[in-house]
Amino acid sequence: MSGTTGATYRERIDAVRTGLEACGAAVAVFGLSSNLRYLAGFTDEPGERLFLLIVPISGEPTMVVPALYLDQVQAHQPSGAIRSWADGEDPTDILRDIAAGLGRCTGRVLVDDTLWAGHLLAVQDALADRTFGLASDVMNPLRMCKASDEIAAMRRAGEIADLALEDALAEPIAGCTEIQLAGRLEAAMLDHGAAGIAFETLVASGPNSSLPHYRAGKRRIEDGDVVILDYGCRVDGYCSDISRTVACGEPPNEADRVHDAVRRAQWAARERVGIGVRAEEVDAAAREVLTTAGYGEQFVHRTGHGIGLDVHESPYIVGGNGEMLQEGMAFSIEPGAYLPGAFGVRIEDVVVVGAGGAVPMTEAPQDMRRVA
Amino acid sequence: MSGTTGATYRERIDAVRTGLEACGAAVAVFGLSSNLRYLAGFTDEPGERLFLLIVPISGEPTMVVPALYLDQVQAHQPSGAIRSWADGEDPTDILRDIAAGLGRCTGRVLVDDTLWAGHLLAVQDALADRTFGLASDVMNPLRMCKASDEIAAMRRAGEIADLALEDALAEPIAGCTEIQLAGRLEAAMLDHGAAGIAFETLVASGPNSSLPHYRAGKRRIEDGDVVILDYGCRVDGYCSDISRTVACGEPPNEADRVHDAVRRAQWAARERVGIGVRAEEVDAAAREVLTTAGYGEQFVHRTGHGIGLDVHESPYIVGGNGEMLQEGMAFSIEPGAYLPGAFGVRIEDVVVVGAGGAVPMTEAPQDMRRVA
Repeated sequence: MSGTTGATYRERIDAVRTGLEACGAAVAVFGLSSNLRYLAGFTDEPGERLFLLIVPISGEPTMVVPALYLDQVQAHQPSGAIRSWADGEDPTDILRDIAAGLGRCTGRVLVDDTLWAGHLLAVQDALADRTFGLASDVMNPLRMCKASDEIAAMRRAGEIADLALEDALAEPIAGCTEIQLAGRLEAAMLDHGAAGIAFETLVASGPNSSLPHYRAGKRRIEDGDVVILDYGCRVDGYCSDISRTVACGEPPNEADRVHDAVRRAQWAARERVGIGVRAEEVDAAAREVLTTAGYGEQFVHRTGHGIGLDVHESPYIVGGNGEMLQEGMAFSIEPGAYLPGAFGVRIEDVVVVGAGGAVPMTEAPQDMRRVA
Repeated sequence: MSGTTGATYRERIDAVRTGLEACGAAVAVFGLSSNLRYLAGFTDEPGERLFLLIVPISGEPTMVVPALYLDQVQAHQPSGAIRSWADGEDPTDILRDIAAGLGRCTGRVLVDDTLWAGHLLAVQDALADRTFGLASDVMNPLRMCKASDEIAAMRRAGEIADLALEDALAEPIAGCTEIQLAGRLEAAMLDHGAAGIAFETLVASGPNSSLPHYRAGKRRIEDGDVVILDYGCRVDGYCSDISRTVACGEPPNEADRVHDAVRRAQWAARERVGIGVRAEEVDAAAREVLTTAGYGEQFVHRTGHGIGLDVHESPYIVGGNGEMLQEGMAFSIEPGAYLPGAFGVRIEDVVVVGAGGAVPMTEAPQDMRRVA
């Protein structure tokens, strides 16, 4: 957060130590990830250069930092030591040195879930006598319930996504490639003040819309196409994520029926949200509507995923997840139905759990609007 | 590659097996990565869902695939078995089952360098009696020297980057935020036929240009700013990567002197490129020019990185890398000089090693042009 202070980061590091103790672990190791941003106010895309934040259960944290990041890291005044290494040097020497200093912190090492194998094997080599687990055990409980400043950033990211939809659909989409329309959405979000896009924009048109994980390709949008738009941006590191399904001209007859069922499923799930409700109950609420409508088999994915500094994080809104919803949890509700080879429909909004139920972060109209 | 056939993928899988044998390893494990694309024609951003390609030294490969990817994976007709799992199921059951079947392939397991720790720990758990190494030992030699179709894709990605520069600078940049200008570059690349952007575009203006790894922020570009643009796109999975330094109006006096030194350094490195030359010699050629010009201390990073399906891959053009250049190797040459708090300059082109020396993939003018 732009307003987050050094004191907040120190509190969060202390919370990691408390979490380590509760897990019976001794050390947490983070790479360039959302956890690093949460704990130190800084991150970047992960890369081949070794960049680590090592938090022992007692004593100061240490950062292993490639020299060319040094200015940026120091600007964030992280607590603890910084050990930098230059291109051409071998950073595993530093790692072994730090490992030797961790001797008193005996016990398990928890590593960032997204840490690259190349870096994890180096850490395992330096701490060869340890067992390893995942830092999400400590980080998920810390990050899952959002504070008011985090929710404010997510709401702003949602507003920008809402605005970008209007911009992108203000001009005709027929004849555009999916990728060009994705570019329009992304440029509009950046223009409205987003710090970046949250993930590569998905534009799936015509039969491509029946592939739930299709991204965007060179297919030109045609009259009669159903088009799924799934995109989001970042504000202060926090993500938005919205899906709308629109039609270029007049879609196939069944499309309106499917769209109506998906929309009712989404609202059934939203209305199920509340403090103390289990995540799987929200999934079941959406699934029940689509099953009754005859599209249960076509709803091939979970209902949603948690969101925050990561586009996908805990809690997952999926069958089998008995986790109870708590105030401040943020997640997507995105039922869909996919008719192979024909078309698909998905409607997605991120909601935050409030005392009165689900509070949406995006509010763009959900109807399957007809676009030129 | 859009024109790559199933036969090519089978040959590449065979080459992995040969590589495993040469390394004394028994199994290679890949996640959603450029290696997966190279071996199976398909990839996506890595995620929390377990997605693996497991290649044993003998017997058929197996893919572990989340159900919602199944259609897309099958469309690529990968050789070997596909084991899919649905949201709500535990994929580690499949993993243990596969591990049991690998009993005859005794020996080391090589894993994708970018495989997430969350997935690697699951693999290590299923194959608890094995030692682990990095798949780059096998994949780098395969991927480092590009074939003509790969070079054609990189050249096209470079042409699109060249065109996007003209588009983005055709309108005034004064008053734009860095992020807005980044959005302009990205939309222009998608509009010119790129399949996607290669990495988050870097626009660093004024004092921000002195931070070599700064991305893009809300700073508005002002008259007198030096502005570094560093961006690229993808064509058929292959990346371009170009940096140009421009000025908004008239830059500080020293900027032209620094720019001239960086440009001479870049050309010294380009001219050093040839078959049999060591990577570190190319680095040294650039470094020597900047040192003589008095900016050696301000050139804080390596001269370049290999590029292909990944933005950063082997070979690295860095001091200490005695690797000999071979025909078809592709890498960036991007010397820079950064004057803390004032400004920075970087000039970058990707080149491919040809019989006659360096063949550039981008050709946009290098001069520090003055833009309104």
